[in-house]
Amino acid sequence: MKSKGAQFAYEGLDRVIHERARLSVLTSLVSHPKGLTFVDLKELCALTDGNLSRHLRVLEEAKLVEILKGQDGNRPQTLCRLTSTGRKRFLAYLETLEQVVRDAAAAVETKQAVSSTKRLVPVQP
Amino acid sequence: MKSKGAQFAYEGLDRVIHERARLSVLTSLVSHPKGLTFVDLKELCALTDGNLSRHLRVLEEAKLVEILKGQDGNRPQTLCRLTSTGRKRFLAYLETLEQVVRDAAAAVETKQAVSSTKRLVPVQP
Repeated sequence: MKSKGAQFAYEGLDRVIHERARLSVLTSLVSHPKGLTFVDLKELCALTDGNLSRHLRVLEEAKLVEILKGQDGNRPQTLCRLTSTGRKRFLAYLETLEQVVRDAAAAVETKQAVSSTKRLVPVQP
Repeated sequence: MKSKGAQFAYEGLDRVIHERARLSVLTSLVSHPKGLTFVDLKELCALTDGNLSRHLRVLEEAKLVEILKGQDGNRPQTLCRLTSTGRKRFLAYLETLEQVVRDAAAAVETKQAVSSTKRLVPVQP
């Protein structure tokens, strides 16, 4: 094999974001820019209370997500929202993720003109 | 929010495959159907000997990868290859991964006609 360096290293797959449950949470939040309640997130991601809490704590400590405590009528409500840092880092992560799909797709179906396929994730400014 | 069930749960993100180093190894191997030596894999994935060994062991135990011991002249050589189960499971994983990119891309750039973008990963038979 001709040396091509670390062609498949994918350094951009940020471990804070890549973990499956957190990827699920972040994709939910990027799809809901106004934020989601804890209860909605739990349902969308099929996570338990404990798991969601644990992963939200990791995301909050990394400043990717902000947690706002509020009220819905008389009941306390937790709102989760992507921060602007979170959005930026998630988009950077997505570019690498798309590269993985692109590399793998090129390998499994070389007949398809994969390299000419249009980008799914817009390039960041 | 209207209930949509576990829309972002991505159950197909198999944890054995999703871990970053293993995803890197599997993408390298799917791109090299004849297999790769330990040394080439290490370079392509930018992993240390110890890390690559550890992850190969996990992949071998899951029967996704086979490890063949041989010789290159006088030197022992280890060849790593995707099994047919490995290829099948990796392709199934890829379909979910592409869905993540698709969902996220749709959210970050709704102006773009993402839903009509052609599939990167061919549907399995």
